[in-house]
Amino acid sequence: MDSLNFSAGPGALPADVLTQVQAAIGQVPEVGLSLLGISHRSDWFTAVVHEAEQNIRSLLRLPDSHAVLFLQGGASLQFATIPMLLLRGRNKTAEYLRTGYWSAKAEAEARIEGSIRILWDGKTHDYCRLPSAEELSCSPEAAYFHYASNETVEGTQFHYVPGRNDVLRVCDMSSDFLSRPIDADQYDLIYAHAQKNLGPAGVTVVILRRELLDDVPAGIPAILDYRSHLKAESIYNTPPVFAIYVALLVTRWLQDDIGGLTAMASVNEAKARALYGVIDQFPEFYQGRALARDRSCMNVVFSLPSKDLEIEFLRRATGEGFAGLEGHRSIGGLRASIYNAVTLEAAETLAQFMTEFQRRA
Amino acid sequence: MDSLNFSAGPGALPADVLTQVQAAIGQVPEVGLSLLGISHRSDWFTAVVHEAEQNIRSLLRLPDSHAVLFLQGGASLQFATIPMLLLRGRNKTAEYLRTGYWSAKAEAEARIEGSIRILWDGKTHDYCRLPSAEELSCSPEAAYFHYASNETVEGTQFHYVPGRNDVLRVCDMSSDFLSRPIDADQYDLIYAHAQKNLGPAGVTVVILRRELLDDVPAGIPAILDYRSHLKAESIYNTPPVFAIYVALLVTRWLQDDIGGLTAMASVNEAKARALYGVIDQFPEFYQGRALARDRSCMNVVFSLPSKDLEIEFLRRATGEGFAGLEGHRSIGGLRASIYNAVTLEAAETLAQFMTEFQRRA
Repeated sequence: MDSLNFSAGPGALPADVLTQVQAAIGQVPEVGLSLLGISHRSDWFTAVVHEAEQNIRSLLRLPDSHAVLFLQGGASLQFATIPMLLLRGRNKTAEYLRTGYWSAKAEAEARIEGSIRILWDGKTHDYCRLPSAEELSCSPEAAYFHYASNETVEGTQFHYVPGRNDVLRVCDMSSDFLSRPIDADQYDLIYAHAQKNLGPAGVTVVILRRELLDDVPAGIPAILDYRSHLKAESIYNTPPVFAIYVALLVTRWLQDDIGGLTAMASVNEAKARALYGVIDQFPEFYQGRALARDRSCMNVVFSLPSKDLEIEFLRRATGEGFAGLEGHRSIGGLRASIYNAVTLEAAETLAQFMTEFQRRA
Repeated sequence: MDSLNFSAGPGALPADVLTQVQAAIGQVPEVGLSLLGISHRSDWFTAVVHEAEQNIRSLLRLPDSHAVLFLQGGASLQFATIPMLLLRGRNKTAEYLRTGYWSAKAEAEARIEGSIRILWDGKTHDYCRLPSAEELSCSPEAAYFHYASNETVEGTQFHYVPGRNDVLRVCDMSSDFLSRPIDADQYDLIYAHAQKNLGPAGVTVVILRRELLDDVPAGIPAILDYRSHLKAESIYNTPPVFAIYVALLVTRWLQDDIGGLTAMASVNEAKARALYGVIDQFPEFYQGRALARDRSCMNVVFSLPSKDLEIEFLRRATGEGFAGLEGHRSIGGLRASIYNAVTLEAAETLAQFMTEFQRRA
């Protein structure tokens, strides 16, 4: 239905998942009620949460040391919650990488709770590249180390894991969660809103090493305290039933239709190659934003020689059925987001359109 | 589809709304994309939020002094946020009514932020009645006065507005929001999660007098600060697009199909009369929980002379197509929730079933 939707988020969902969601809005056969009228305390929904968790565990090969929570409030609520839980009252400094729009937001919220050190600021490079491992001198004394694995606005993505293994590693994986395999044991806390690769807006996944919870400071509101959600198996208060159910369907699709994250990563890399290939072929015309080494496999950000050409690009693209190709409002330009549900065919169709547009311009 | 669903929440939604939601999952015609793949920064979604707000304003006859926000996190996040914003650092006491399960939860969270006084505790009455206005001695010095207008677990509902007009009045209206007209000017802050009368779980409405925001203490995370959401017109971060869209459809239904809140309240009262009528007719058999004066028009809570009879009641009810009649896990018994989308016909069908069950028992 949305085969040429390159929206940066909420992103497109697999067509087959949408068909299943439509049916469930009418009736979930096992329950005999609409998905929207089923109690979150029902056995059915308990099983939904359990299966969604198990699928995420299996896709990411999570060790038993790690718990999976389904929360509300987006990554933005995690920006605030994480320093409350891991920095407040600790007399330590948390280290943040400022690599773009989103990691800067996370860092601003952390300052409310304690001392923050910016280990690296991409500003001097206009956020078009990321630090190499050699450029980072992470302190062994830090409360934790925080970074965003993918910056959707600037179109950069880490292709290695920064930080050090003897300091808590916290990663905002919102925009590339489940898009490629990870070595889960390297992470102490991962958070990701759903609306790029996992489901509709309205649910956020937090994966954390259980040990972190031994040391939660006093005075944290119950709703922000991961322990409440862990104890209640993500049904502490009424969870976003719809969004979690759709996320379950997407994890099934990832496992059964795609064949897991290694297969998904191959497809994502092929989509990225198709688009960056055109950019590299016509570098005077398509100006890629990110340094080649740090290019995102999720958000292909580029601009054209003039604003007028960009408007014309969008006009013609819309006419041919493409959607969501505008750049982020903070920097303008163009952006093709190629999250999991965007097919290789769609990316190739866009690459072809770009080639033709360049020829005719 | 869910005509005999008496779930306490997420509650049933109007059949016509479900049909529209199904279509939108396929494609929103004005946009040409699935509802789940539309950007929250699109003009279309801006218009959705605007119309949903306007409909709520119109249904509740909100004065211009009041703002409407769509947030995430449920009422539980508001339990924590409200005292952060209205009590923290103020050297005042907030007054809470402890009338049941939910208001007690709100009060527990408020204690984190400052001094709380329980003005009235229904515990000695096993929470089966509410205080009369004469029983409350509200202080003119309180930071604010907090109560829940309806207690879903115990089945009580305020049929007057407690508190005093010279102290901020804060009301958890989660379970009877939009079920009856209110005098909005009497409230300084109203909060309500959607999943009873307004839509699916995943969105929470906050209505507040704008003046309250002049005095927000420093150090509040941006995501919890109502000013962030007000400034961004409820699109501060990615909102729960799906849940807000469904809420819009429900407000349209309330306006166009039902004819507004006075008409809705008449239907809700008729449904309540049908069920309480059976309870009053067979008081030895159907033991209503709430004092008649304080009975809820949303949650009809009762028990039978034995646990075995209750099990049999649920078994037969399920066999005849009824759903969601179990009491809350904290107190057991039975509960029929008759939120807006439950029709009078459904309530009458249940009343008839109850009459027959009593005869045959």
